[in-house]
Amino acid sequence: MKIYDDYLKAIRQTIASDRQSGLANKGLSFSEREIQKGFDFKTLNEQVPEKRLLPSLADFANELGLTPNFEQKLGMHPDFLHLKHSESIEEHYIVSMFVDIKGSTNLFKKYEPRTVWGITNTIQRAAIHTCLILGGYVHRLQGDGLFVYFGGKEIAPDLAVKKALQFSSVFTYFVKVDLRKLFDEQGIEKIFTRIGIDLGFDRDVIWGMAGIGEISEVTTCSLHTSLASKMQGSATSNGIVIGDNVKNAIPNLTEYCSPVSARTLNEGDRYIFRIPENSFFYTQYDFAWEKFLKNQDFIVTDWSGDLKLKNQYLLISHKNPANLIPIAIKSKPYFDF
Amino acid sequence: MKIYDDYLKAIRQTIASDRQSGLANKGLSFSEREIQKGFDFKTLNEQVPEKRLLPSLADFANELGLTPNFEQKLGMHPDFLHLKHSESIEEHYIVSMFVDIKGSTNLFKKYEPRTVWGITNTIQRAAIHTCLILGGYVHRLQGDGLFVYFGGKEIAPDLAVKKALQFSSVFTYFVKVDLRKLFDEQGIEKIFTRIGIDLGFDRDVIWGMAGIGEISEVTTCSLHTSLASKMQGSATSNGIVIGDNVKNAIPNLTEYCSPVSARTLNEGDRYIFRIPENSFFYTQYDFAWEKFLKNQDFIVTDWSGDLKLKNQYLLISHKNPANLIPIAIKSKPYFDF
Repeated sequence: MKIYDDYLKAIRQTIASDRQSGLANKGLSFSEREIQKGFDFKTLNEQVPEKRLLPSLADFANELGLTPNFEQKLGMHPDFLHLKHSESIEEHYIVSMFVDIKGSTNLFKKYEPRTVWGITNTIQRAAIHTCLILGGYVHRLQGDGLFVYFGGKEIAPDLAVKKALQFSSVFTYFVKVDLRKLFDEQGIEKIFTRIGIDLGFDRDVIWGMAGIGEISEVTTCSLHTSLASKMQGSATSNGIVIGDNVKNAIPNLTEYCSPVSARTLNEGDRYIFRIPENSFFYTQYDFAWEKFLKNQDFIVTDWSGDLKLKNQYLLISHKNPANLIPIAIKSKPYFDF
Repeated sequence: MKIYDDYLKAIRQTIASDRQSGLANKGLSFSEREIQKGFDFKTLNEQVPEKRLLPSLADFANELGLTPNFEQKLGMHPDFLHLKHSESIEEHYIVSMFVDIKGSTNLFKKYEPRTVWGITNTIQRAAIHTCLILGGYVHRLQGDGLFVYFGGKEIAPDLAVKKALQFSSVFTYFVKVDLRKLFDEQGIEKIFTRIGIDLGFDRDVIWGMAGIGEISEVTTCSLHTSLASKMQGSATSNGIVIGDNVKNAIPNLTEYCSPVSARTLNEGDRYIFRIPENSFFYTQYDFAWEKFLKNQDFIVTDWSGDLKLKNQYLLISHKNPANLIPIAIKSKPYFDF
């Protein structure tokens, strides 16, 4: 999709500065390598500024007409920060999402710790930037994973769900396709995401401070926050698993959902939670995020089947109208000649 | 061990205030239950003050001669807080520990969300309080779990390891024995801990800020932080898994360690990480925490095999010397008549 191209470039540069693998490839001797300083923080900030989208991702934000808010604080959702040290709790709906990146430990097999630090921090910044564009609230950093809330007091649950699904689909595409390609080139073992998402309604979600003093965060206690975390564990490599409430929040989401049990062929995996006495059975679904992504307004499929940002693609195509012919045949709905 | 008795009492009171199960047990009608307000934050703070140990745990702190420091902040280890917004990274040893509590989602089967909130927050405060007594630094709250560092600039790695093992053993005993008993009474399904611990030396641990702006924490990038998290996943119910560096940090720890592969009977589980090209094979061990706990200075085993705080036990026993006879026979090393 090109939207992460500049982040990928930063990762390539980070790898090139590694004194174990990068410089060895350049034919430097051990003592020459010792003099090299390796990757550092200044370089990270030059390559991927904290509070500025890299151009390729800025194009994506422009396409969506969205501006990220960089001024969040961990563990303090802006709509609930009055609960910090307040002795109050509150009920309010929220979408909880757990994003895990598996396999990044393998980076230590090849690179020195500061290079791994540079790579994982770049991936994490790409994730945070994308999340902020789509209006997500980053609640907790978990290694190279994230715990993100979507929703709040000024946004309806269905829109929060839509944004959550867009974020998770775009980010999974990045890891599955773009990052995979780069790591394959470098001979790094499998890295993949696993994402769990669930929606809890007002009556099911307690917001309040957890912990003591400043060893604390404003967080949710909810069956559906717990289930989102469990669903992450149910997800396959590069998979997204969503709960029943998510599926029912937006019309026509059913076509992207199939019960996890249909994949595992184990009927026990259909429900992620059950209270038989209350006839409560809560289904978890594999979410067909690639199909969902292709059907988003901002995406177009090119002649080779690759996903592209719509405006970007039109721009390039118009420079050389011959490029358009095969797409005009395949992807008619997006073009109006 | 009695050290959590007051926390258990708080959990019992929380359960009694539940409008689904607690009041139903008291014979209240549905409308009577509606009027009840259920558990709230003020009650939590009355039952378990944020920055005061409950008496039973204070006894434990006194026994050890230790005072907790309640003034920590999440994601900002006091010895490394100069790295926040500094564009610097630093190498320094650390013990990383991941404590997970599994099965707490089952609480939602029986109790309303605010009761679950009260129970899990009490357990979390018990964990934080214990951790602070033993000099741990709570880096991240993870639901009802914790990510804790032991060690820093003024403490040697072997002492940090010892404290980490003491914390994990005491807390696992609480969940396995005390909490289990309480939840059994209430008909709650299995709740248990899983803990992973590893030690990374200076050259293997990068300290630096991760994230952007205030969506950030000062954290470690280290093979051994990653492995501690993985080892948590390797642990059995109420199990503690430790890495080779932990085992070798203290003399005579070998007697408490057996490779995970000896339990699973799968030789593939012996090493949690391997780089065959470099002949690097890193072993993970099941840690015999009950045996370790019994051998701590502050613990004594009573006539029935239960663990007790040494001073507390002596005190009670001296009031009624007849009680001492069976112990004097069994537990001679601890008594000097």
